[in-house]
Amino acid sequence: MPHVFLEYTANLTDFDADKALLRINHALVASGQFGAEFDIKSRATKLEAFRVGTGAGERGFVHVKLALLSGRSAQIKTQLSESLLAGLKDLGDWPAGVEVQLSVEVVDLDRESYAKVTF
Amino acid sequence: MPHVFLEYTANLTDFDADKALLRINHALVASGQFGAEFDIKSRATKLEAFRVGTGAGERGFVHVKLALLSGRSAQIKTQLSESLLAGLKDLGDWPAGVEVQLSVEVVDLDRESYAKVTF
Amino acid sequence: MPHVFLEYTANLTDFDADKALLRINHALVASGQFGAEFDIKSRATKLEAFRVGTGAGERGFVHVKLALLSGRSAQIKTQLSESLLAGLKDLGDWPAGVEVQLSVEVVDLDRESYAKVTF
Repeated sequence: MPHVFLEYTANLTDFDADKALLRINHALVASGQFGAEFDIKSRATKLEAFRVGTGAGERGFVHVKLALLSGRSAQIKTQLSESLLAGLKDLGDWPAGVEVQLSVEVVDLDRESYAKVTF
Repeated sequence: MPHVFLEYTANLTDFDADKALLRINHALVASGQFGAEFDIKSRATKLEAFRVGTGAGERGFVHVKLALLSGRSAQIKTQLSESLLAGLKDLGDWPAGVEVQLSVEVVDLDRESYAKVTF
Repeated sequence: MPHVFLEYTANLTDFDADKALLRINHALVASGQFGAEFDIKSRATKLEAFRVGTGAGERGFVHVKLALLSGRSAQIKTQLSESLLAGLKDLGDWPAGVEVQLSVEVVDLDRESYAKVTF
């Protein structure tokens, strides 16, 4: 905890997933919400098969799901999602001619049944 | 919002993911539940490593997760999942000799912390 | 139902995803919580793009999400997650020099809107 799941569509050809993950992890550390930097587990997936809506025109998106152990306030969750969204916007180089949507959701991990071990 | 996550096992060799996504998006637009067609962000993943149960015999599945901003009624969610399931059934050509399961789940996106930008 | 989503980082080079899924499915059958073995639908994804924390040093992880139709008690969910975590630990051969985190979460599938067909 936390877990970060980043997805981006394959038509965002200049998207640097490694850079995005590192930036997200730094933003989460900087939030002061998490005890140890090594707890942050993030992954990125390039989406080869996707469809935005039903219209013509090229469209793409980046979506981040941030999963946190339950118990944080709505305010903190909103701050975290806004912070991650701002970080995504900064990544820039979106291809010309592609309508790009960036979104961030926050989801609770059920604290009681979450199990973890490190070794 | 909404987000659609479709997964299908690699042994469903005739499954047309692009067609499935387009059909799903059209069904969601037709539901009248969403403001703009371009808000619907759908992706499909082919599962190369999977296991259904513990028995012998070839088995596969298609699973769709529909994620909606929180606040919709149970009735509307059920109508949406039934509609998407019906659309999957229509896709047909399931391979002979493979037991196929199709399933649809609906999950809430936490409205308060959901953040989005388009550009 | 249930659905199992296993992810593992690509630097866990000896991780046997097929073996892990089969072991998970057997553990779920043995739990007595599920009506039929063929209901258990599990998949594994190798994560090529990932980042654990912000520090140096090689790190990896395995994460399992178990999705169950809603209604089970917190105690049963905890028993299931502990059982799956124990199974992951037994898989062993973690590479020398990689700090490995194993985690299991349990999530509810909304029972009312879950739709399924088998054929």
